[in-house]
Amino acid sequence: MPASGQTPVPVVDVEAMDRNIAAMAATARRQGLALRPHAKTHKCVEIARRQVAAGAVGLTVATVGEAEVFVDAGVTDDVFIAYPLWVVGERARRLRALSERAAIRVAVDSAPGARQLAAAVAGATEVLVEIDSGHHRTGVNPGQAGEIARAASDAGLEVAGVFTFPGHGYAPTRPSQAAADEAAALQEAASSLTQAGIRPRVLSGGSTPTAGYTRDGLTELRPGVYVFGDAQQLELGTITTDEVALWVEATVVSARPGTIVLDAGSKVLGADQPAWISGGGRLLDRPGARITALSEHHATVTLGLEQPSPELGDTIRVIPNHVCTAVNLADQLHAVHSGGNYERWTVAARGANR
Amino acid sequence: MPASGQTPVPVVDVEAMDRNIAAMAATARRQGLALRPHAKTHKCVEIARRQVAAGAVGLTVATVGEAEVFVDAGVTDDVFIAYPLWVVGERARRLRALSERAAIRVAVDSAPGARQLAAAVAGATEVLVEIDSGHHRTGVNPGQAGEIARAASDAGLEVAGVFTFPGHGYAPTRPSQAAADEAAALQEAASSLTQAGIRPRVLSGGSTPTAGYTRDGLTELRPGVYVFGDAQQLELGTITTDEVALWVEATVVSARPGTIVLDAGSKVLGADQPAWISGGGRLLDRPGARITALSEHHATVTLGLEQPSPELGDTIRVIPNHVCTAVNLADQLHAVHSGGNYERWTVAARGANR
Repeated sequence: MPASGQTPVPVVDVEAMDRNIAAMAATARRQGLALRPHAKTHKCVEIARRQVAAGAVGLTVATVGEAEVFVDAGVTDDVFIAYPLWVVGERARRLRALSERAAIRVAVDSAPGARQLAAAVAGATEVLVEIDSGHHRTGVNPGQAGEIARAASDAGLEVAGVFTFPGHGYAPTRPSQAAADEAAALQEAASSLTQAGIRPRVLSGGSTPTAGYTRDGLTELRPGVYVFGDAQQLELGTITTDEVALWVEATVVSARPGTIVLDAGSKVLGADQPAWISGGGRLLDRPGARITALSEHHATVTLGLEQPSPELGDTIRVIPNHVCTAVNLADQLHAVHSGGNYERWTVAARGANR
Repeated sequence: MPASGQTPVPVVDVEAMDRNIAAMAATARRQGLALRPHAKTHKCVEIARRQVAAGAVGLTVATVGEAEVFVDAGVTDDVFIAYPLWVVGERARRLRALSERAAIRVAVDSAPGARQLAAAVAGATEVLVEIDSGHHRTGVNPGQAGEIARAASDAGLEVAGVFTFPGHGYAPTRPSQAAADEAAALQEAASSLTQAGIRPRVLSGGSTPTAGYTRDGLTELRPGVYVFGDAQQLELGTITTDEVALWVEATVVSARPGTIVLDAGSKVLGADQPAWISGGGRLLDRPGARITALSEHHATVTLGLEQPSPELGDTIRVIPNHVCTAVNLADQLHAVHSGGNYERWTVAARGANR
């Protein structure tokens, strides 16, 4: 375990994480789907290796920088950058260099973006057309997918298929509908490609909240958060407490009746707090407690009915709301194996936003 | 300027930053107060040096790790760790070692915390008693300050005085009242110390929103955000657009009528979004635009009336809501001098949460 007095520190329960990795691999196999986990969640070479060993066909990432980390570490030579990159200048040079070392797919969601990509990297990358299945962020309407695919193909790019991120599943009661939307949108987009004369080989979807829903219309799943779980997934009902594989160990530094303050703030937990969640993070061993205020180095916790109350100096395990942003704040994770021995895993792609 | 295609990137306007540093130094001088800027905002040695050169008496930090960075770089030998540390184990060893290289003050807000600190570091650090002036985070009621000071003194610690963080000034219309609360609470706490037989030399307050209010009852100001400004300060009315000295350069990666999506998400801007703020960040050159959704690598911007609309590939300057958490996500800042030449400043205390 981490040295005494060295809080706050993010800790990985390796055994729980390995169970999560195996369970998602089984979910994908059961549905006959390729699993391409999103590595933005963990950003760690050691964890990506375990995902690939469990059967992942490759990785999903959000940036060229993340792709470089995992390709250069030899984890995989098959990476999907699930982002509609605008590829110019130094980014073009890096993407060309990367595509000489690995098979790279990139997202496109506009004809100008596709032409820019084609001009920058010639035939070096495949593309997937991004479609909007209800999250309304990036991506075109499914019926427009063929038009974008045609523009990409005409510009000289190999179009592998379509993908979507059903982010509108991130609210209680919504994952089921989002999963249905995701499958329907992918099928409509695939038809649109076919009508445009392009055969879609890949229909890629799958966030952690929607991954477990069985439906037709996908060939690939891209969940990320499932490796660790977090307070959002707990409150969505996607996971149980037993599946939480990462927490931040924090110390009680101030206390008054009914309230404690921990030395884990937004600079270690992240500040993500969607309107539907019940606080700034959860306490693993105190389900009735809530983080009712979070600043950079303070989590103010309103205690529940659990007794006894924590005392000054006690160590408390805090589950971040959104583990992807929490991990991105840490240079290292303390990975604790069953039996208690631990090692430090470098968050190799931390801050790799470009 | 940063290389083409290398967004998102945090950029510092050094000339604007230097003006902010000079203006706060003048504010402190005019009030006859010592200025001890909070270095958690910038975490950069280059910037701390400029603050000290402009007359700062030393630095404020939140963690032992931050203090180590600035002391070891030779910026100052006078540091206040404005946090009620629970000092055991490795933290005790580090704090003792640090106090051999610099004059260190530490916060206390409980008798057990003071006794623990005294046991761990003997007479190596001075303390300030933290009081609650209305923010209700850490700190005791002002009338209890004497009791805590007495416990600290009895444990063998030198008590230098009292301090508070008026964080309840962080909402529109509240800074004025918070400044008054801060001064009144510090004076009450000072009286409490005097009654306990301890002479308070230091009465320390001052967030960026309250620093400009002239009032009696303080000897020291500890603002942090003023060096850069951010969207929170803009919306509080603490600063104008001309005083914004840090933004994130981002690229338009997706566009539809009335909406653009930028490649700057919460992993570069931070996710801080208090209920009173009008979005996830502001666009420096488009005051009518708002970030209406923010995910890890996407800022969805609802455009205002400004014409023409940005196009795919355009570079946009984004002001983070809370610059302290944005800086803590970056390994380096691109510091642009007047004239356009730039250098990279390492965020030396990034992630120094322990």
